[in-house]
Amino acid sequence: MTGKVHLVGAGPGDPELLTLKALRLLRTADAVLYDDLVPSAILKLASPRAQLHSVGKRCGTKKIMQEGINFLMIELAKAGLQVVRLKSGDPLIFGRAGEEIEALHRAGIPYEVVPGVTSALGAAASAAIPLTHRRVSSALVLLSAHQAPDKEAADWTKLAASGATLVIYMPGQNYSAVAARLTAAGLVADTPCAIVSRATTSDERIHPTTIEDLHDAPPLPAPTLLIVGEVVRFANLADVAGQAAQVINNNPVPTAEPLSAFLSLPEPAVGDDEPFV
Amino acid sequence: MTGKVHLVGAGPGDPELLTLKALRLLRTADAVLYDDLVPSAILKLASPRAQLHSVGKRCGTKKIMQEGINFLMIELAKAGLQVVRLKSGDPLIFGRAGEEIEALHRAGIPYEVVPGVTSALGAAASAAIPLTHRRVSSALVLLSAHQAPDKEAADWTKLAASGATLVIYMPGQNYSAVAARLTAAGLVADTPCAIVSRATTSDERIHPTTIEDLHDAPPLPAPTLLIVGEVVRFANLADVAGQAAQVINNNPVPTAEPLSAFLSLPEPAVGDDEPFV
Repeated sequence: MTGKVHLVGAGPGDPELLTLKALRLLRTADAVLYDDLVPSAILKLASPRAQLHSVGKRCGTKKIMQEGINFLMIELAKAGLQVVRLKSGDPLIFGRAGEEIEALHRAGIPYEVVPGVTSALGAAASAAIPLTHRRVSSALVLLSAHQAPDKEAADWTKLAASGATLVIYMPGQNYSAVAARLTAAGLVADTPCAIVSRATTSDERIHPTTIEDLHDAPPLPAPTLLIVGEVVRFANLADVAGQAAQVINNNPVPTAEPLSAFLSLPEPAVGDDEPFV
Repeated sequence: MTGKVHLVGAGPGDPELLTLKALRLLRTADAVLYDDLVPSAILKLASPRAQLHSVGKRCGTKKIMQEGINFLMIELAKAGLQVVRLKSGDPLIFGRAGEEIEALHRAGIPYEVVPGVTSALGAAASAAIPLTHRRVSSALVLLSAHQAPDKEAADWTKLAASGATLVIYMPGQNYSAVAARLTAAGLVADTPCAIVSRATTSDERIHPTTIEDLHDAPPLPAPTLLIVGEVVRFANLADVAGQAAQVINNNPVPTAEPLSAFLSLPEPAVGDDEPFV
């Protein structure tokens, strides 16, 4: 009997921001194919009997080509396994899930997509930045600074000129280049923005600044996100520092380990997952 | 001792799409203030000792004004309670969390924001529509058709012309008006789109169409979302029908009740939550 592939969002980093469904699927999976950005604390939630396959891409060099990931997913499912394809954030945003879905469709493999908290939402929550605000911004744009070679960049000029809040995924550390691009798109120099590094993890950093001062920002560890727009003025960073967030120049604060309550859940018996798949 | 307010995303509808953190906070809350769109199955997860306050707005008439919600949150926290302010989807997207954060900040009440799966992600997952795709769309725009009276609408023309995928929250049932607005913004008549009604719930409906045929779409129960863009062509709706999704004209399919595994978690003792707040 053919298995099934579950394309699952692992959320922004904090294991407690997994969904209940993601946890259930991890605990009942026969095989887990995961990206580099998925934290080890999340992988530890997988069933001990599950095969774990790292299929990440590091430093721009693909460890396994996309075709290889597709092949592996399909072969494992054909062998009757319940496969979790675990992606950081949400699988349908900058996650290449479209290509994996197409491959599964062509191969006739049953699949489902399980949404997750995309990193923009995790970062905004840590910094308490409202992404929309009825007095300031009635739209949110998620875009990626890292473009695939065969795709034209989204039109930054039109997006920036719309007045929407922008969240830029993978802005890189060349902040001057990003600032130049935003300025060229028509944003004024004192537009507030915030770099959020490793959102929702214990070593999260938040650096609030403006477009004109962005070039002075410290290089922060990836993954980072850049939130741009008037809504950033609403962040009361002093309020949130000391929770998950660490605002630059504040002291690090140890985080609680609330996941332990879930780790003590009984391990499901084999077959328990059948009514759900 | 002052309590704390947790602004928590309840996800798009399916209780299994709650985060582990949202479940923990619900189960340890002293008071829960919830919106109309939060399903009763999620409210049932709250501690039996928690006060439940409905603070939703129905049919455009606010049952309790925003000021009243702010007042209630603040008074409950001042009384030393752990308060969960539960919002459907993610609190920072079209959820007025900005105004609540500002009120909490002014009152000196400790707070945190717990992100959730926003409905656009839930709807796209059910329909297996990749919201970005490296060959088709490198940006995603979330916007609301329902505008606050004191805010200019986001510039639909610029957003639509950018080539980004659009997800329109609260499009209403006047599909002709929405189609006219999208056409005026420069989108061509055969641009694919999909209405998703009650995403991720057992009575979800998906209606794929195009901008020119949108006026013929059946009126579907709120809440609905409209996904617009070339990425909609990648949906293989026959693949996903019979999971959570029900594509229009397909037969309803009963859904499993996988949450039962979590409902059997032991009720935390009073005080158990202290290390986490």
